Amino acid sequence: MNKTVLITGAHGFLGRYCAAEFCRQGYRVMGIGHGSWDNAAAAAAGVEMWVEGSITLENLASLPLRPDIIVHAAGSRSVSYSLSNPMQDFESSVTTTLAVLEFARLAAHSMRIVLISSAAVYGSTDINRITEDTPACPTSPYGIHKHMAEQLCSSYRQHFGVESTVIRFFSVFGPGLRKQLLWEACCRMSSAEAPKSLEFFGTGNETRDWLHARDAALLVRLAGEYAHDGLVINGGTGEAISVSDIIERLAAEMGWSGRISFNKIVRNGDPEHLCADCVRSGHLGWVPSVSLSDGLADYTAWFRGSE
Amino acid sequence: MNKTVLITGAHGFLGRYCAAEFCRQGYRVMGIGHGSWDNAAAAAAGVEMWVEGSITLENLASLPLRPDIIVHAAGSRSVSYSLSNPMQDFESSVTTTLAVLEFARLAAHSMRIVLISSAAVYGSTDINRITEDTPACPTSPYGIHKHMAEQLCSSYRQHFGVESTVIRFFSVFGPGLRKQLLWEACCRMSSAEAPKSLEFFGTGNETRDWLHARDAALLVRLAGEYAHDGLVINGGTGEAISVSDIIERLAAEMGWSGRISFNKIVRNGDPEHLCADCVRSGHLGWVPSVSLSDGLADYTAWFRGSE
Repeated sequence: MNKTVLITGAHGFLGRYCAAEFCRQGYRVMGIGHGSWDNAAAAAAGVEMWVEGSITLENLASLPLRPDIIVHAAGSRSVSYSLSNPMQDFESSVTTTLAVLEFARLAAHSMRIVLISSAAVYGSTDINRITEDTPACPTSPYGIHKHMAEQLCSSYRQHFGVESTVIRFFSVFGPGLRKQLLWEACCRMSSAEAPKSLEFFGTGNETRDWLHARDAALLVRLAGEYAHDGLVINGGTGEAISVSDIIERLAAEMGWSGRISFNKIVRNGDPEHLCADCVRSGHLGWVPSVSLSDGLADYTAWFRGSE
Repeated sequence: MNKTVLITGAHGFLGRYCAAEFCRQGYRVMGIGHGSWDNAAAAAAGVEMWVEGSITLENLASLPLRPDIIVHAAGSRSVSYSLSNPMQDFESSVTTTLAVLEFARLAAHSMRIVLISSAAVYGSTDINRITEDTPACPTSPYGIHKHMAEQLCSSYRQHFGVESTVIRFFSVFGPGLRKQLLWEACCRMSSAEAPKSLEFFGTGNETRDWLHARDAALLVRLAGEYAHDGLVINGGTGEAISVSDIIERLAAEMGWSGRISFNKIVRNGDPEHLCADCVRSGHLGWVPSVSLSDGLADYTAWFRGSE
């Protein structure tokens, strides 16, 4: 019998990539979370059964199948959302993780949980490549809440034997992402006003580690299948790209040739440098396959088509 | 006009001592939490207004007065409860703290929060006197959840300017405490079966730092009035008393002369030694005033009267 995976937030950006990845590998995919999806659309996305609803213990317990793997991809939206709605951010990040863990604790058979966490847990560091042993020092409610979700995983493993793996993703992008830097930049470059210059937040020297969502979903599956219990894994490529660099490359892909500048304002809760050490993910046999150039071409092609 | 204090869990053990302490100092005392209290009984306990209900943002927002100080004394029950009911423990410890912080964030005037936390946050250490800078390493869901409540205080201070102080209490006891070691020992020593010998958990060499609830409540008030924002304070006397020692002293007070033994079984999540470094609490001008002998006499006198 095929194994079953439950993906919370399967209707969201990374959740969809995970659904497609597990489906391709022959899993039966169940999804739960917010978003309206009819059966046909869900099936086309690789999701055999979609339950629209909050991630609560009650909703999880009433699912007709018991999954072998749970990918907890539902969660909060962004650093800026957490700064204006800290309680809601906590609920969508921490309270949902508790429900998933409690569901697994009370279940008759063992389930492996993969928690989708974030490099925001590290906060600001001056480390070139952040290893998973770098002390957590989150600088936003978003990062603090992700870290608390991780602590719950650790508590449930230690005290109740619930198996889990945490992946701290860096900057995941790809077709379908309708938020954050790349999306905003594409929108502004292609706006009807045809701006000759664009100003962005920060200095442009901040660096991020960009990972295509297809590669991210592959890492999620490998972690669900092979990672040992309790492992924390970075999800990044190990390549630090400055914000000015990525915007210039995006502009080239978009065919936009205006002037790019930066307002020098550092946004609250935004770490300056984030780049993953990739030793642990490599031990799972995972190697990112989408180059940044191909990823940006992919993203802008999707963006043009989605306008 | 008199200042107003809101005490969550005012109907509970430590909450009642806090209500009495603030009332004696001329505060208007409001209380919210579980437990049935008529107006007269609440007033006799120093609580001018008692709202029976859960600690939710909605219930807090509908209080008729805005407090100057909030003592968040509501919380989870015990280490053992957290091991059998981790989700409920989380909710009563972490979710209620979030509600209190969000209430303060959204309020028009500033409130100071005093979070009642626990030495369980430290977990097992081999440190003689634990300072507040000792890394948190909780060994039970109870301790993990208290630590998460502390992290929320830190997040709300850092990101939203909500002022708070955390007190990590060691072993608080006194008349009214109907759980934990002293209560159980008194119950067993005075049981109708008149046992000639009693066996207790552990080796007897575990040490605890015993603090009378009257002194604990005084520390809570001083922290609410004088502690600087963000301070974490140990609530203990600095005196490590072994479990066998305290049981012997209790037996003497109870006039019970049977044999005391220990089963050598270490309970899950129970740290071996917990003793407070008291430098920070001393800076607030706080000195515990009830000796352990007087405290045990006080406790056993109450126990006999309450039978």
